[in-house]
Amino acid sequence: MTDLTDVLDFVDANLERSLERLFELIRIPSISTEAQYGADCRRAAQWLADELGALDFASFVRDTAGHPMVVAHGPQASGPHVLFYGHYDVQPVDPLSLWTTPPFEPSLAPQPDGETFILGRGASDDKGQLLTFIEACRAFKAVTGSLPIRISMLFEGEEEAGSPSLSPFLEANADDLRADVILVCDTDMWDRHTPAITTMWRGFVSEEFTITAANRDLHSGMFGSAARNAVQLMGTVIGKLRYDDGSVAIPGFYDNVSELPASIKAQWDALPFDAERFLADVGLFVPAGESGRSVLEQIWARPTCEINGVWGGYTGDGFKTVIPAEAHAKLSFRLVAGQDPDHIRTSFRAFVQSLLPADCTATFRAYASAPAQTMPLDGALLGKARAALTEEWGVEAALAGTGGSIPILGEFKKRLGMDSLLVGFAHFDNRVHSPNEKYDLSSFHKGIRSWVRILAAFAE
Amino acid sequence: MTDLTDVLDFVDANLERSLERLFELIRIPSISTEAQYGADCRRAAQWLADELGALDFASFVRDTAGHPMVVAHGPQASGPHVLFYGHYDVQPVDPLSLWTTPPFEPSLAPQPDGETFILGRGASDDKGQLLTFIEACRAFKAVTGSLPIRISMLFEGEEEAGSPSLSPFLEANADDLRADVILVCDTDMWDRHTPAITTMWRGFVSEEFTITAANRDLHSGMFGSAARNAVQLMGTVIGKLRYDDGSVAIPGFYDNVSELPASIKAQWDALPFDAERFLADVGLFVPAGESGRSVLEQIWARPTCEINGVWGGYTGDGFKTVIPAEAHAKLSFRLVAGQDPDHIRTSFRAFVQSLLPADCTATFRAYASAPAQTMPLDGALLGKARAALTEEWGVEAALAGTGGSIPILGEFKKRLGMDSLLVGFAHFDNRVHSPNEKYDLSSFHKGIRSWVRILAAFAE
Repeated sequence: MTDLTDVLDFVDANLERSLERLFELIRIPSISTEAQYGADCRRAAQWLADELGALDFASFVRDTAGHPMVVAHGPQASGPHVLFYGHYDVQPVDPLSLWTTPPFEPSLAPQPDGETFILGRGASDDKGQLLTFIEACRAFKAVTGSLPIRISMLFEGEEEAGSPSLSPFLEANADDLRADVILVCDTDMWDRHTPAITTMWRGFVSEEFTITAANRDLHSGMFGSAARNAVQLMGTVIGKLRYDDGSVAIPGFYDNVSELPASIKAQWDALPFDAERFLADVGLFVPAGESGRSVLEQIWARPTCEINGVWGGYTGDGFKTVIPAEAHAKLSFRLVAGQDPDHIRTSFRAFVQSLLPADCTATFRAYASAPAQTMPLDGALLGKARAALTEEWGVEAALAGTGGSIPILGEFKKRLGMDSLLVGFAHFDNRVHSPNEKYDLSSFHKGIRSWVRILAAFAE
Repeated sequence: MTDLTDVLDFVDANLERSLERLFELIRIPSISTEAQYGADCRRAAQWLADELGALDFASFVRDTAGHPMVVAHGPQASGPHVLFYGHYDVQPVDPLSLWTTPPFEPSLAPQPDGETFILGRGASDDKGQLLTFIEACRAFKAVTGSLPIRISMLFEGEEEAGSPSLSPFLEANADDLRADVILVCDTDMWDRHTPAITTMWRGFVSEEFTITAANRDLHSGMFGSAARNAVQLMGTVIGKLRYDDGSVAIPGFYDNVSELPASIKAQWDALPFDAERFLADVGLFVPAGESGRSVLEQIWARPTCEINGVWGGYTGDGFKTVIPAEAHAKLSFRLVAGQDPDHIRTSFRAFVQSLLPADCTATFRAYASAPAQTMPLDGALLGKARAALTEEWGVEAALAGTGGSIPILGEFKKRLGMDSLLVGFAHFDNRVHSPNEKYDLSSFHKGIRSWVRILAAFAE
């Protein structure tokens, strides 16, 4: 335990240097979905490989068909073998005008309550989170000269783009990457005081589609009312995707979706969760999900359909009385256990087709998909991690669900047979994927300390 | 009649020079709705003033709060006094990728049937059309040394932007602009062989609105299904604007809309019009207007609502699983006799509000509006113009309606008490407001000849 205390003290004493490293990483605009940031993505990968190399990891930047992977193996050969997974890519930053500070110029913003926010794109998702683990390793290395267990790491640069290169990479490098368990730091705490391990997450299907009506844009004076308007038709399709009660209207969408077991429902109902506050924090007060279900159930255990973007017709300054010939939308489904992504995609496409007049067409482009997953609750490592978190935070760690999707964990399970342990320190108000993303300094600091304790527990 | 023949011969002999002038005017990218083309709009105005000055018109470029007006008075003081109105501004050109030739580099494209297309933005609407009148004046001036009647002209540069400066300009310059009748060349022929005078046209209301849900874009994993999605809500609103039978669902929309008199309906039913062909030419075959009404009735005599553009959420490359906080749309209504534009605008806004959950808001921005109009069918000038057109084309000129709107004619009626005579040579397939706009060379050539005959008839 002397070692552990020393390592934790090192973390406290070197927090400022850890923050400087996080700032360095945030300054690299590694947006994976926009082609012009390709070189920045590689720069972020190289930065991670260099940092890990300096900690005596055998680290490599490995090319893929997309952005590169970082693979690193720690020098320690004994103890359980963990593979820490994270992603160095970040979401686009638009609308830029809503940022109060430049997204890639990180800064600290002290708050009235004593907390300090780390501001910047990726401060939370996932640069801040993944660095909590690396900084924990750094502290062990600095204080004890070695790592407490056998540690490998894998960082990808396409998580925000659906991880297209991950599956072939895992398949091609299965022997190099296989470990006892995957550790992931890309999830939330239960609340500001309560740490959490996430044990179930939704799957997803993402899709872009285009509706085409006439063979060109038309003048609404000449054709208005007689010719089909593609944007109007898109509105009709979008408007029919969900019923007024919030449920999804696509035939077959709820095939094989089970009701939540009463025991889990009771556990969730007992969690300190203020549904009104949850919505009020984002300016809303009318729940939009399926009526008759709690917000936690809606988000963790019920599937949904969301339109992520729409465009068509004239959208510039002024006015153009055009009847648009084309309309476009991006949408995604969040899936729960029992739903097959391919079946959902097929059912959605058939539903759209069924709503089109005979002279209009729809074309579809598939983006990524993944089934929902649940992690086993009876492992020794889970128990040790939960105890370590409880010790650090002084509050029993919650076992929670999440409405998000971590599709790559399905890939790890499928390709390498590995389960995952999800420990994260983000908060639901971190504005990930939104302007003014932030990470609490306490998340960063106590996150590093938490990993120190978890790694020490795994070594026992 | 010797004079008339000589003038017509001059038109024929100088067609190439007339075309060169049209090309000069098309080359000026006078897009009125995009701020960066402001100087080009002024350049187009000056070009017109210079051309008319060379024909001994007293011509002026007059400033407004927006793009300038061109006012010109011919030297002739006897005979009826006509005010020719046109607009030198053009529609935006996006999507540029669909143009097969650059929009502001006019060219000729001979067709297999012997016709030749004049290609370019504004070739038809309204540069080609307005030049038919100027070139007719030029021919009179060249052959006879003078104009046959008293002619004034007014060209504006904001027609495609809703003519915001016209009303105050007419009010401030009523005495300078008042004449016996307005002549306008901004409409279609009945078909390739049949000239037409347009005697009724729809009004319109244009509007932009924004729906706001949460106070920021949200992550669909965290909030998906529980938080309202502004784009989804926009889809619901758009989807509910029209019933499945094509009629508009806004309460009060059809207040004071009368059924078409049986006599007019019979005249329209007798016109050579192939509704299937009309739609087939733009790649459609399912009429989208109110069921149980002919396409001509739908377009000329029934009001409608069209979405002209929509945007919201993530629309870039790749994917972003965001729940958009805002969605935007531009839409316009085409109105018929009896509908009050202000009432329609108010009813629309109330309808949108009625569809919003209590925690979402809509904001509205009014663009231009104008009531529908019908011109008197018993005037002497109308009879003379019809006879002159019939003589030039060898087919009796049709008296037709149009689904388009010419709101400025309502302004002329209101401010100056003047009726309008609409003679145009465009065809419904001219792709005005669309990529690859064109004007038939025969429209241009025989359009000039038609005006020569009409002006000669007015002088008798």
